[in-house]
Amino acid sequence: MDWIDTEAYRVPINGRFDLSTQDPETKDNGLSKLQAEQLTREGVERLAELQNILYADGRHGLLILFQATDAAGKDSTIKHVMSGVNPQGVKVYSFKQPSVEELSHNWLWRYSSRVPARGFIGIFNRSYYEEVLVVKVRDLIGQQRLPPNLLGDSLWKWRYDDINAFERHLTNNGIRVVKFFLNISKEEQRRRFLKRLNQPSRNWKFSPSDLRERDSWDEYQKAFEKMLCKTSSVHAPWYCIPMNRKRFGRLVVMKIIVETLDAMNLSYPTLTSQQRAAIDAAHQSINY
Amino acid sequence: MDWIDTEAYRVPINGRFDLSTQDPETKDNGLSKLQAEQLTREGVERLAELQNILYADGRHGLLILFQATDAAGKDSTIKHVMSGVNPQGVKVYSFKQPSVEELSHNWLWRYSSRVPARGFIGIFNRSYYEEVLVVKVRDLIGQQRLPPNLLGDSLWKWRYDDINAFERHLTNNGIRVVKFFLNISKEEQRRRFLKRLNQPSRNWKFSPSDLRERDSWDEYQKAFEKMLCKTSSVHAPWYCIPMNRKRFGRLVVMKIIVETLDAMNLSYPTLTSQQRAAIDAAHQSINY
Repeated sequence: MDWIDTEAYRVPINGRFDLSTQDPETKDNGLSKLQAEQLTREGVERLAELQNILYADGRHGLLILFQATDAAGKDSTIKHVMSGVNPQGVKVYSFKQPSVEELSHNWLWRYSSRVPARGFIGIFNRSYYEEVLVVKVRDLIGQQRLPPNLLGDSLWKWRYDDINAFERHLTNNGIRVVKFFLNISKEEQRRRFLKRLNQPSRNWKFSPSDLRERDSWDEYQKAFEKMLCKTSSVHAPWYCIPMNRKRFGRLVVMKIIVETLDAMNLSYPTLTSQQRAAIDAAHQSINY
Repeated sequence: MDWIDTEAYRVPINGRFDLSTQDPETKDNGLSKLQAEQLTREGVERLAELQNILYADGRHGLLILFQATDAAGKDSTIKHVMSGVNPQGVKVYSFKQPSVEELSHNWLWRYSSRVPARGFIGIFNRSYYEEVLVVKVRDLIGQQRLPPNLLGDSLWKWRYDDINAFERHLTNNGIRVVKFFLNISKEEQRRRFLKRLNQPSRNWKFSPSDLRERDSWDEYQKAFEKMLCKTSSVHAPWYCIPMNRKRFGRLVVMKIIVETLDAMNLSYPTLTSQQRAAIDAAHQSINY
């Protein structure tokens, strides 16, 4: 997959990023369907191998986040990229509407309790970033019953600050954070919604509220852009992935995850001489 | 309790605090045992009343932390100050040695999942501050199996930063944080240990490891002082409470908790005209 330059999709950390400059149609023209499938297979194998070492090594963890509009391909990307990896080492959380108990806690609470341990890959299908997306665009802050004096202009700034501090904390604990924004065009979303409406086997994916969210397309794009600008960092970079062409987008996601794990320099634990001796002794006694 | 000036026990936020300047023997000379008991009773009543409004109001929460050397009176202070408050609104967590699962997570993980919701009082008997106390003094960092590149000089600085960010996050979510360091002298600890050794009904409180910890008295005092300097803030102040004279120390703790709750300007929710009408309607129909 050397021909994919993942750096091209990394959101800069200088706080300047214009979402409209990326064409969601981006794809590699030279790639046949067969080749793409071959590359995906190879990627899945490599990922399965790396996850195995991550688990054995036990000193690093990986948190992968997906954020996007509806029908951008969060579920199918997780399915295609992670199928083949031992589920014992991967935990996927799909965050839906918060419960009453969750709403009465600090807003990071329901997310922070689900971050992966060292040795594990955690996947957040939606995440704490919803708190600066749907909560902001749909003005759901009232549900959280905060004291009135905390509802001023600083509220969103505090949330970006909290997120950056939280991700720094995770990084300083050996948990690497990598974040994907899956970018589709409004026209592509229309096509995918129509598919869901037309095909009975896809009907379950559609909810009437999806159209209400679509009505707020521009506000969401603005909120996504602000999120990308405020929270892409060296330790927890955002990647903006063009997803109109799903197959290509998934390959980019796959490559970034592989590169992230590769950069950890993972290795199987090496034995101390004492442990070596215990292994040798076990080897002897099992022969009889 | 107007004669207790709680400000005198608040650790300044300028990062300068010399633990040796406080005399742990401090007490109010004019207070008889009878008077102290009377004041405690009044305080408990007021606290029970405030907790009830906190619960009904539902917009604020309170996290109270206790840190101290062994035998300084953490358990007995919690018992004396909080008995009388409805346990439905109070959750006490006593943090002991972490489990294997807890050790494999980011170090804030086991604490952050236990912070109180809005409407509740949470009490941490020991807390995330253990991560810059026992972990530091006993050099237990190896248990956490962090990647070697994270074990540099910045490690403790990062922990203080993480704590300050975490407490700011809680404050910005309506959860007030108030922290007590219970300060006893080394000689007073000796007296209390002897009591535990001499009285069969107190034997269970003693563990041989307590003496090993006592051997590190000076290192702990240094770690406590550093913690107080680095993490006392406007939004989450530390109070350093002289505890050689338990009865007095408890009264100071009680007064600070009452003042903290008072400052929240709690009130029972006021009804909207719609809710008022519903109450009136219920009133009518219950008469028949």
